[in-house]
Amino acid sequence: MSDFGWEKNIRKVVPYTPGEQPEDKDIIKLNTNENPYGPSEELIKKIKELDIDNFRKYPNPAASELVEALADFHGVSKDKVFVGVGSDDVLAMSFMTFFFFFKKILFPDITYSFYPVWADMLGIKYELVPLTEDFEVKAEDYNKENGGIVIPNPNAPTAILMSRDDIISILKNSKDSIVIIDEAYIDFAPEGSSVIDLIDEYDNLVVVRTFSKSRSLAGLRVGYAVSNPMLIKYLNNVKYSYNSYTMNYPSIVLGKSVIKDNDYFKGTINKIIKTRESFSKELKELGFKVLPSSANFVFASHPDVDAVKIFDEAKKKGIYFRYFNAPRINEFLRITIGKDDEMKKVTDFLKDLVTEES
Amino acid sequence: MSDFGWEKNIRKVVPYTPGEQPEDKDIIKLNTNENPYGPSEELIKKIKELDIDNFRKYPNPAASELVEALADFHGVSKDKVFVGVGSDDVLAMSFMTFFFFFKKILFPDITYSFYPVWADMLGIKYELVPLTEDFEVKAEDYNKENGGIVIPNPNAPTAILMSRDDIISILKNSKDSIVIIDEAYIDFAPEGSSVIDLIDEYDNLVVVRTFSKSRSLAGLRVGYAVSNPMLIKYLNNVKYSYNSYTMNYPSIVLGKSVIKDNDYFKGTINKIIKTRESFSKELKELGFKVLPSSANFVFASHPDVDAVKIFDEAKKKGIYFRYFNAPRINEFLRITIGKDDEMKKVTDFLKDLVTEES
Repeated sequence: MSDFGWEKNIRKVVPYTPGEQPEDKDIIKLNTNENPYGPSEELIKKIKELDIDNFRKYPNPAASELVEALADFHGVSKDKVFVGVGSDDVLAMSFMTFFFFFKKILFPDITYSFYPVWADMLGIKYELVPLTEDFEVKAEDYNKENGGIVIPNPNAPTAILMSRDDIISILKNSKDSIVIIDEAYIDFAPEGSSVIDLIDEYDNLVVVRTFSKSRSLAGLRVGYAVSNPMLIKYLNNVKYSYNSYTMNYPSIVLGKSVIKDNDYFKGTINKIIKTRESFSKELKELGFKVLPSSANFVFASHPDVDAVKIFDEAKKKGIYFRYFNAPRINEFLRITIGKDDEMKKVTDFLKDLVTEES
Repeated sequence: MSDFGWEKNIRKVVPYTPGEQPEDKDIIKLNTNENPYGPSEELIKKIKELDIDNFRKYPNPAASELVEALADFHGVSKDKVFVGVGSDDVLAMSFMTFFFFFKKILFPDITYSFYPVWADMLGIKYELVPLTEDFEVKAEDYNKENGGIVIPNPNAPTAILMSRDDIISILKNSKDSIVIIDEAYIDFAPEGSSVIDLIDEYDNLVVVRTFSKSRSLAGLRVGYAVSNPMLIKYLNNVKYSYNSYTMNYPSIVLGKSVIKDNDYFKGTINKIIKTRESFSKELKELGFKVLPSSANFVFASHPDVDAVKIFDEAKKKGIYFRYFNAPRINEFLRITIGKDDEMKKVTDFLKDLVTEES
């Protein structure tokens, strides 16, 4: 018991645990799904063009330049785009805005581990909907009363993609709830997998994206939502009730510059997809079970070698994976797709370990 | 009535209205209390040194470099410092963390207009404590049951400073509540006005600061809190339950660099204080009532000329002031202290207007 009178009045939460961010440049960092290829030359140019006088002034609170660039990119009007400090900020504000209700929201039992943290902090009730035995999201399982639905597509950490038809069926069956599709990894999925084009047809759809993965800009903290103007307006009202100036000057102008740089962007995505496919094949040859990935990471387990053992041994060699000590997935590792030479070292390391242990 | 089933479930708030951010470089912008002097040469140097590879990676979630530089600057250990996306982010998280209770929190009736917005959004009950007739915060008025207290010192938009003794009496009389002293403008007050040095003595004290005013970095969005390690830990838990990576890479390294640059910083503060004193004198000579300012702005009214009239006429001439249409202060204007040549133009304009109207 604390001696402090104020102690009982304080909000106590169990926070989300982010992946480690070791500073050592020599490690092979495959634990936080960053893009191994840096941003393009265009960004370097824009950094040099930053206007010192704009640091002194408050940024444009609507981050209009960035919002307009995103609206152009997606071919929507600018009142359909909301930006935030990474997709975590966009999702946190979406939870605050859209799930202000007594009914339980639904999300998968195995998914982005921030969802239950936001719900707990904001006092939102939720129900975990189990993935199938094959770790897939089953649309029918969401066909029940709810106060909202959140699904990442592809899901994380499973990397498995859900079909557009399944999402449409969820949207149709929960017309009175907001359905958030978290497309953090969609750029690594086959073209045509996104549901951004459905925002006009389904007024309950909010699609969330990030610059941290495919756009190679985790360090800049930019995320966004695309939805209909009504829902974007509600989101903005909450944002303006929380912090009028969430986006700083560098994130607005540098964020805008990378959107224009689409060829470079497509190039790195294609390289990552190619590496993902060859790496998955090699993992399977080593006896790993690898879930079919549409993301920039794979989720894999080995029948003979303990995941914690692999995780620990890898770390000793300076290779960082992500491990979740959670039901159903505690024998899996999430491995971000790095550059080819990094994945070669990973394969060599795993080959040695599997041979030793088997 | 809306046709949408989800409409009733959405959080509806009346957001804070930030001051206008016109893009035109020719205007005299005295409406958002920015520093007219840009950041130092040191910042320009650091911008050029930004490491492109750090944009691809998630920033350090604890923003350790920045936290350590602030801890050094204030001579406290690093577990006593919390950083956020401007002091608005720090205050919003403080409201979420510390006012999680059924009792009313207290703040002045005339103060930073974001306080009631946060309280309303987060469902926190509050009671406005009237300033005295002279627009001063009276310590005894806070000597009543409460779930927390928030006071900016100097207060805004009045610019009036409260004594350390008064703050100490508030801290002593509300030991079971968290008392937030928002020191956004303290660097423009006489030395020794801050209460940061009291955080060890009073375990219920949280002091909030910003880089947006004296540090000339509104565009970077950096704010911080200094308090005891327990309260900082609770704040961090809420932060990690909301967004693990609120501070982007530029804000961490550039923020750090300006802390080191203390001589430049002191120099611009002294210039602003000097201008504030001469400008206040001239306003008084024009018949204005000017509240005694310890900030980088003045709060003034004229007995013969309507504040809205001054506001509108100034805007036509490209001079932006801030006006609050609120009880007791709707005859006042808040005027940020700009450079001497800007204030000369403002004085000339006001002289003409007052002569015409009187």
